[in-house]
Amino acid sequence: MAKKIDHIGIAVKSIEASLPIYTEHLKLKLMGIEEVESEGVKVAFLKVGESKIELLEPLHDESPIAKFLEKKGEGIHHIALGVDDIKGRIQEIKEKGLRMINDEPKTGAGGAQIAFLHPKSTGGVLYELCEKKEKEEK
Amino acid sequence: MAKKIDHIGIAVKSIEASLPIYTEHLKLKLMGIEEVESEGVKVAFLKVGESKIELLEPLHDESPIAKFLEKKGEGIHHIALGVDDIKGRIQEIKEKGLRMINDEPKTGAGGAQIAFLHPKSTGGVLYELCEKKEKEEK
Repeated sequence: MAKKIDHIGIAVKSIEASLPIYTEHLKLKLMGIEEVESEGVKVAFLKVGESKIELLEPLHDESPIAKFLEKKGEGIHHIALGVDDIKGRIQEIKEKGLRMINDEPKTGAGGAQIAFLHPKSTGGVLYELCEKKEKEEK
Repeated sequence: MAKKIDHIGIAVKSIEASLPIYTEHLKLKLMGIEEVESEGVKVAFLKVGESKIELLEPLHDESPIAKFLEKKGEGIHHIALGVDDIKGRIQEIKEKGLRMINDEPKTGAGGAQIAFLHPKSTGGVLYELCEKKEKEEK
């Protein structure tokens, strides 16, 4: 089902303020910063082995990340599992009786196809399925 | 600093109740179950690429996981970064001005040497440094 942890999403108030913790203190490599309008977020990608840490800053008050910050404060937001054939995986998960937030994949950061599972089905953890369009750099 | 995401720790009330989500629905491989008395937890390890998901069930009411469940409910508890030379890394982190919960490494699941950073230093995220004693299976 899942090939790897594609990334861990972390809600932050400000990428600018949080980034030094990751680049200077934990010495992770910044791979890029991107705005994902569909999700209402600015995203900074930091490389850790085959995975990434994604810092998520809300672009506006209607962003799901703005609502998360308001309710829970800064912290871990979701875990993304790297998969092939995301449509097939969504189908399988629904057949097994788990709830999806997204029945159809949508386009996320880096052009990936993504779909979230409902955290009520997964013990309070927000899992994302994430399929990269092209082969990623190792 | 960090070679990989060693594991993501997830607080659960019951490993027995939560495990089918991971093994049957998400089809992850269960690598083992272990009790870590020093942390007051039972831990189930599930393989995802080079990383693991660790389900953490409290062994008693004084366990940090029991307190976490009481306060926040089930969900993501911490992110462990795989490092070499944990003592050197702790020293570096302290010199950079971040706070450690553990100034000296202690023994965690699988005999690993572990130390937690203080989440007030890292934007609300509980990070663990984790050094494996022996070479791990790939």
